[in-house]
Amino acid sequence: MAEFDEALENRLGELTRETKDRGIPLMIVIEGPPASGKSRLANALYMALDAKYTNFMATRPPREIDLRYPFLQRFWNHLPKAGDINIHFRSWYAQYINYKSYGIKENIRTEYTDIRQDMENFEQMLTDSGYEIIKLYVDAPEEVRARHIQKLKDNPILKWKAEEFEEQLDKTDYIKEMKKFLDMLTGCPWTVIDFEDKEGAVNTLFSTVVERLEARLEQEDQTQDGSVDGDFTKKYEAEFFDFDFEDEKISGKDYKAILPDLQSRMREIQFQLYKEKVPLILVYEGMDAAGKGGNIKRIREHLDPTGYTVNATGAPTDVELLHHYLWRFAIDIPRSGHVAFYDRSWYGRVLVERIEGLASKQQWQQSYEEINAFEKSLYNSGAIIIKFFLSLDKDEQLERFESREDDPDKQWKLTDEDWRNREKWDEYVEASEDMIRKTHTAFAPWHVIPGNNKKYARITALKKVIETCEARLGISAKSGD
Amino acid sequence: MAEFDEALENRLGELTRETKDRGIPLMIVIEGPPASGKSRLANALYMALDAKYTNFMATRPPREIDLRYPFLQRFWNHLPKAGDINIHFRSWYAQYINYKSYGIKENIRTEYTDIRQDMENFEQMLTDSGYEIIKLYVDAPEEVRARHIQKLKDNPILKWKAEEFEEQLDKTDYIKEMKKFLDMLTGCPWTVIDFEDKEGAVNTLFSTVVERLEARLEQEDQTQDGSVDGDFTKKYEAEFFDFDFEDEKISGKDYKAILPDLQSRMREIQFQLYKEKVPLILVYEGMDAAGKGGNIKRIREHLDPTGYTVNATGAPTDVELLHHYLWRFAIDIPRSGHVAFYDRSWYGRVLVERIEGLASKQQWQQSYEEINAFEKSLYNSGAIIIKFFLSLDKDEQLERFESREDDPDKQWKLTDEDWRNREKWDEYVEASEDMIRKTHTAFAPWHVIPGNNKKYARITALKKVIETCEARLGISAKSGD
Repeated sequence: MAEFDEALENRLGELTRETKDRGIPLMIVIEGPPASGKSRLANALYMALDAKYTNFMATRPPREIDLRYPFLQRFWNHLPKAGDINIHFRSWYAQYINYKSYGIKENIRTEYTDIRQDMENFEQMLTDSGYEIIKLYVDAPEEVRARHIQKLKDNPILKWKAEEFEEQLDKTDYIKEMKKFLDMLTGCPWTVIDFEDKEGAVNTLFSTVVERLEARLEQEDQTQDGSVDGDFTKKYEAEFFDFDFEDEKISGKDYKAILPDLQSRMREIQFQLYKEKVPLILVYEGMDAAGKGGNIKRIREHLDPTGYTVNATGAPTDVELLHHYLWRFAIDIPRSGHVAFYDRSWYGRVLVERIEGLASKQQWQQSYEEINAFEKSLYNSGAIIIKFFLSLDKDEQLERFESREDDPDKQWKLTDEDWRNREKWDEYVEASEDMIRKTHTAFAPWHVIPGNNKKYARITALKKVIETCEARLGISAKSGD
Repeated sequence: MAEFDEALENRLGELTRETKDRGIPLMIVIEGPPASGKSRLANALYMALDAKYTNFMATRPPREIDLRYPFLQRFWNHLPKAGDINIHFRSWYAQYINYKSYGIKENIRTEYTDIRQDMENFEQMLTDSGYEIIKLYVDAPEEVRARHIQKLKDNPILKWKAEEFEEQLDKTDYIKEMKKFLDMLTGCPWTVIDFEDKEGAVNTLFSTVVERLEARLEQEDQTQDGSVDGDFTKKYEAEFFDFDFEDEKISGKDYKAILPDLQSRMREIQFQLYKEKVPLILVYEGMDAAGKGGNIKRIREHLDPTGYTVNATGAPTDVELLHHYLWRFAIDIPRSGHVAFYDRSWYGRVLVERIEGLASKQQWQQSYEEINAFEKSLYNSGAIIIKFFLSLDKDEQLERFESREDDPDKQWKLTDEDWRNREKWDEYVEASEDMIRKTHTAFAPWHVIPGNNKKYARITALKKVIETCEARLGISAKSGD
């Protein structure tokens, strides 16, 4: 029987204080078959780490409410911030196997392979932005596990836990499915820990984490600078902005005639989305004063407020800055059947953050794919995603700025920042075009709407939303049934 | 028919930008019988406010998970931070009536009157710390409501909403129960809005909010300074620290003999708490180096890590500072059946915040009652609350500091702050005594444990936890059943 290695525990403490200081977020995944001893190991690890910045997160059977969000929602919600540590006791792997074994389909749009892809993207996205993910599989021979179960059974207070283990073994393909994951060559690697006696297993666990952290810290010391230049050499093309703004108009009379019907229809659509539990995500981007807020208002006007939210995206808070940039959006997406408007969105990463140098070139370049993967995961959970880019020409913007300046009730809308952004007009055009080209996907398409005529833009957006939802809900455009 | 008053809407915008700037958190409660038109009013209000800092929160029938937390949990979770606005579409009032009508007892320990008291305390606590709570009741004559329902019924897509309204009217005593609340003379006052036509009702709603905000802002301008001195003149008494430290000891041999049995029993207790869905809250306070972490460790050692958390309370984050001081604790309390350790806690308000001047005298003085009310609400939801104060004498602290200083593996535990705190020893003693005297309640008692002998303190705490839980769970001290 091995002896507990106190020096190793001290070293682990030292290294995790170092990752805390350097702001490296750490996720330690512990998987393993029932009664393999993994809860004792996990507890030893939890106790060895500083409770100030260590969170213990266990997966559990999905609740009804979980099924109203994307598959990875709980992991997003509990993502560690810079320097913090998560111990994942069972993780997205066990959750995946549970879903698959029980045939849960409720927030899976197509196939389980999509969810597997979401999981891979999730890990990739996190490691790319500096997260350290250490995956451990605690295994034990069948007779050892049987002994653990028997011991529980002998105690009347603990007996039900043994029954739970047995049920898990009976009803899920955990061991078989995990085998496949362990054998995969892509993604973060697994370390298998054989549980024979507790002390030996704890030592193996601790030394695995210690080695990984030592390697990580050494690697960090050698890297000069985080901002590696990619081979991103897309040249400027103006294709998305070639609208003949003069032509896209609607008269005040027509507008007044059409709008109320569209708004009533939108209200019906909202109720139908709710009934069929389809989440609707509406993203608005565009130049300052392009009319995003007013456009959203026309869609909201007759909706039931208990079923929608408007997320106006401003500068991130201190806590948000300590997380992955998608985190603040991911924890706040609508549950099934609800509508969420985004007045600006996660695309700030490749617009303002790119232009103002708040993200490095490497960071914003890798964001296109991350955003696509993120939207794909929303799509996989059943969401309709519609993205509007409200375009507007430079003269029209100036006129709107000046009219805001002159109106005492609207002055507050115009800030110094708006003027500063205007000076970078060309950069915003270029960044917007790159964004649209790189993130225009079948599952989350962009619609560029000329915004010089506000009424035209509102009617166009409203029609597009209605039409997309009708197609998805399979309800005809005319009748209310 | 009234006309929509745009000037009023502009004034509302102006005032809420002012409350935003001044950091006043605003909660607007909208209640009213089904089909009274309140969702249209609420939407108008939502649209008139700036989406950047306005949240819309609807109550809904409780889910299973809600019943595993205190009654007010969801409202704590969504509490607006300084300057933000919450629109509560139905609120704790509707939730209370739902619980009562449906006879939901699951997270109610004693009587509904306790929950009513929790609600009153909640509002009081918030207004005392600067929250503005505006409560509106939207009423409509029965024939108007019947007309609204009929209109929904006529539309095949909206019909189910009408049925929901009718069910609410059938199955709950909403109108009768709300009447009682409206007639109450205590607490924040209600304004009744009669819905005849939408525009008129919107105008009334807006002007009510405008008047309340104007009054509030005027009052703020007149108040010189927030720190009013209370008549808190408790004199210093040393009663809680009169231990004969020499006597409270346990030998190493006895310790080793007793500890494993107590820890196994603690594990059984944990499983039983889980099975019976009783949450256990263990609060630790005490001087630096009093042995809180080590004491908690001995209790944790054999527990299942999926069922407990350790909350080590440090300085609040920026976002936390923008909330009520109890918020960060309230959103993180254990769900039923789980155990939460607090290595320092909300009592920081009356200890470090008092001593370092981070809370004004008025603030920390009113906190005793707020904390008692908070703990009472946890108790009302079924929790066992045990609070330990680990005492220690000044010489012993010095010895422990010096031994940490000499041990390379423990140096990190000793910070400059520890030395600074030590200089304020007498102030901490006084604050601790006041705290214990003012917050020692039947539902959340303090246990002062002499901590000079760590082994004695650990065994004493462990025994106290086991004994308290056994009594509550009704399991005998000896057997496992």
